[in-house]
Amino acid sequence: MKMKPKLSIVTLGVRDLDRSRAFYGALGWECTGDDEGIAFYDVGGVQLALYPREALAEDVGQASAGDGFTGITLAHNEPSKGDVDRAFAEFLAAGATEIKAPVEVFWGGYSGYIADPDGHLWEIAYNPFTDLT
Amino acid sequence: MKMKPKLSIVTLGVRDLDRSRAFYGALGWECTGDDEGIAFYDVGGVQLALYPREALAEDVGQASAGDGFTGITLAHNEPSKGDVDRAFAEFLAAGATEIKAPVEVFWGGYSGYIADPDGHLWEIAYNPFTDLT
Repeated sequence: MKMKPKLSIVTLGVRDLDRSRAFYGALGWECTGDDEGIAFYDVGGVQLALYPREALAEDVGQASAGDGFTGITLAHNEPSKGDVDRAFAEFLAAGATEIKAPVEVFWGGYSGYIADPDGHLWEIAYNPFTDLT
Repeated sequence: MKMKPKLSIVTLGVRDLDRSRAFYGALGWECTGDDEGIAFYDVGGVQLALYPREALAEDVGQASAGDGFTGITLAHNEPSKGDVDRAFAEFLAAGATEIKAPVEVFWGGYSGYIADPDGHLWEIAYNPFTDLT
């Protein structure tokens, strides 16, 4: 039998756990587990975890150095363009860095990008074809 | 009203879309959407998307160069240690690179890591305290 297609946890390596907890908390996202130096958020069927970057690299067994484009983006979808604008503003108010203001995009949606305190990229998007909210 | 805590999509930038499709397909994960050069997989409440790395960087508006540790890991949980061993072997059979063979870990679980064809890190884990399968 083949394995179930399942993403259980996305772990973001962070340089300052308190700062990252404050950032995601400011969005109104409630920590659902917070001990042994790792914070979990239930983000709709999957867990988002915040864990110190050095410790995460050590767990993997790799050097923690790395820079440039990570090659991974996370998307938070909203049910309308207006909701994207509102959520985008909430991310900025929480301390996110604006990367790309929301615009109409080639595939027919509306989206922008922010970076969290460690540079992890979130796309804030409205998809008129599929509801992923 | 604060935004809903929701992760809608995790997009992995890939250097060869056909190669990555073949990799995730070999795990038995079925593509649920595949057009305009992006492939989607329903991975349990969240979508996993494969998209060319250069195009992803362009969408973000950043240079695509980057190396070293990405600072992000994805976890696929299984319901037992034996299932972790089986899933780990399935990832390797699909062409994954072994990063860390499954071992008992300090937090009481059992886990190992593999890298997909672009180096994206997956932890294959059993958590005796929380069922995230």
